[in-house]
Amino acid sequence: MNRRDEALSMHVKHKGKLGTYSKVPVRNTEDLSLAYSPGVAEPCREIYKDSKSIYDYTMKGNTIAVVSDGSAVLGLGNIGAHAGLPVMEGKSVLFKEFAGVDAFPICVNSQNVEDIIQTVKMIEPNFGGINLEDIAAPRCFEIEERLKNELDIPVFHDDQHGTAIVTMAGLINSLRLVNKNFEDIKVIVNGAGAAGIAVTKLLQHFGVTNIILCDSKGAIYKGRSEGMNKIKEQMAETTNITKEKGSLEDVLVDSDVFIGVSVKDILTKEMIQSMASDPIIFALANPDPEILPELAKEAGARVICTGRSDYPNQVNNVLAFPGIFRGALSIRASEITEVMKIAAAKAIANLIKKHELTEDYVIPNPFNKRVVEVVTEAVSKKTLEKQSAEINL
Amino acid sequence: MNRRDEALSMHVKHKGKLGTYSKVPVRNTEDLSLAYSPGVAEPCREIYKDSKSIYDYTMKGNTIAVVSDGSAVLGLGNIGAHAGLPVMEGKSVLFKEFAGVDAFPICVNSQNVEDIIQTVKMIEPNFGGINLEDIAAPRCFEIEERLKNELDIPVFHDDQHGTAIVTMAGLINSLRLVNKNFEDIKVIVNGAGAAGIAVTKLLQHFGVTNIILCDSKGAIYKGRSEGMNKIKEQMAETTNITKEKGSLEDVLVDSDVFIGVSVKDILTKEMIQSMASDPIIFALANPDPEILPELAKEAGARVICTGRSDYPNQVNNVLAFPGIFRGALSIRASEITEVMKIAAAKAIANLIKKHELTEDYVIPNPFNKRVVEVVTEAVSKKTLEKQSAEINL
Repeated sequence: MNRRDEALSMHVKHKGKLGTYSKVPVRNTEDLSLAYSPGVAEPCREIYKDSKSIYDYTMKGNTIAVVSDGSAVLGLGNIGAHAGLPVMEGKSVLFKEFAGVDAFPICVNSQNVEDIIQTVKMIEPNFGGINLEDIAAPRCFEIEERLKNELDIPVFHDDQHGTAIVTMAGLINSLRLVNKNFEDIKVIVNGAGAAGIAVTKLLQHFGVTNIILCDSKGAIYKGRSEGMNKIKEQMAETTNITKEKGSLEDVLVDSDVFIGVSVKDILTKEMIQSMASDPIIFALANPDPEILPELAKEAGARVICTGRSDYPNQVNNVLAFPGIFRGALSIRASEITEVMKIAAAKAIANLIKKHELTEDYVIPNPFNKRVVEVVTEAVSKKTLEKQSAEINL
Repeated sequence: MNRRDEALSMHVKHKGKLGTYSKVPVRNTEDLSLAYSPGVAEPCREIYKDSKSIYDYTMKGNTIAVVSDGSAVLGLGNIGAHAGLPVMEGKSVLFKEFAGVDAFPICVNSQNVEDIIQTVKMIEPNFGGINLEDIAAPRCFEIEERLKNELDIPVFHDDQHGTAIVTMAGLINSLRLVNKNFEDIKVIVNGAGAAGIAVTKLLQHFGVTNIILCDSKGAIYKGRSEGMNKIKEQMAETTNITKEKGSLEDVLVDSDVFIGVSVKDILTKEMIQSMASDPIIFALANPDPEILPELAKEAGARVICTGRSDYPNQVNNVLAFPGIFRGALSIRASEITEVMKIAAAKAIANLIKKHELTEDYVIPNPFNKRVVEVVTEAVSKKTLEKQSAEINL
């Protein structure tokens, strides 16, 4: 059976991938009278009196929604809410399998920003967190921002922050290998969509000041007139300080790190050869990277990370999102902060000990059971520190 | 431990009652590449090409939403979406445990009709059916009607139709015991909320023509000015043909059946004594019935049904809703029709064989495993009959 048939038959076999189950027995009238009427009235009354107790008596505190409008699904693009369901179901499965988080797909049948925000706000009672998924940029930024402000449960757009966190984990270890510091490097981020913006912002939080963000029209700089939008204009305020103009090829010269979240084959051997010593390449376009790792290596790239599992150093979001939500839910965090994201990236990077670190091993394996543990711990500790800092103010 | 503490501690133990689980293994990179990227793209592409194939490749076909706005929760009233979550979670558990239907609670954080309709329409991609629950009358009628028209998946308000179906099952067997026919009996339905309206309508579908619907102001008749609303006016068109006026006590005289979906203790021994021979009493107010069964018996009631599990003949919706949805989902019905409801009621009634039938056994036990089987079969057969009839037109 070829891979396509194998994937289809696996999905047909159980009609999808996610189910629900009862955590309590329902074998007889006695059980029924506790789990349902009349016993269930007791937790209802308690929650009515004290809304916070919903976390004690219901599934809310361990349950998140995987929300998408199907507008930017994997490499498939805008296939809509229905066709996006297999991905959201799969993502829900990963939350459960990797971190024990009960997740449920919510594919919203509209691509209108207000509809999506309104729907999520309406179904909030059931969920302890919201994972936004595969929503096209720039719409995704407004949706995330608004929901973060208007809800008191954590909201996290994984295509942005999951990718950014794991990329940073890989970059931390790559810089260790080549003995460079965040403060000194020049980074080119190619792709100004959800992932590119989030990577750029997280780079800044790590102390990188020399970043140029590129899109299909080349370097983004303050005052550029063509192909701008609100978020690109915001980013132009704090990146590309020297206002370098030109193509990706132009600005890549003498840079230390290339991070591509764009399209296949746009990076050439010659371009890598124009970079500073020990080039670090993140070629994250999926399934076909910006340059194939074997070519990048030939051109002198020191470390190469891709989104693919058949090459070393896979930037796989599953390293981050399960532990991020596990940690946030465990302490009932109301948001997922930059500090938590930084802590998660460091925790992932630090799983690889100094003596284990090689060009082909800067990112741990997603099936390393320690990953979710250290991310959970890092996230929950950081939030608690923040909370106690606020209390001490 | 008293009952209250027992119920609370059961809910705290696992933090609620419902969880999600993966139907597929995710042990290694190979599994991941089938359940998630890149393999998951294949079912996405198929659904994009043929929207109906969502039923083959995803959870949709076995998954329903238990939707409530928390406005009429059990006997607790309007406690809101958050405090209603334990009930919707419990209901979801019952769907799974009794019929293997994956159900998920959706407590909508608004009591505005348009908000509720809009939210359900937005989340439709994930679900093969919608079970409305604990939504106050008369709002529930409009919400159900609109959603039935605007969605192509079955929508079922259990407080209405579940109650009506099980009541009819009990009534079928009660009439067998006393040798009366639907066509000949006079029925008083007390309570013009969700359940009362649905019971009345289903009685009519069974051929009962002599029905008087009462509310707190007494008999409802065409032209009554006080305390009417749209649905009561509609019902007045087809019930109480002789326009009897007066209190419940007045109109109950010489009736054969009393069906109360109202409040406790409003039925007296004297009122039962005023009824025709072999009075049949459904005292369904919960947890305290319209009259206690022992008193009704003393007054000469022949059959007494309540909503309670500690008396014989419990009208428990769990006899109907699991099989109703199991049947509807199994044949991808686009709606749950009156014909299906009638078939379900008959199937439940017929589980009790003629020689088993007694005054204290007109309704089967909810833990009788045959119940869900016969209801599923009845519902799916009736729909198929209807479909083939349409095809033959």
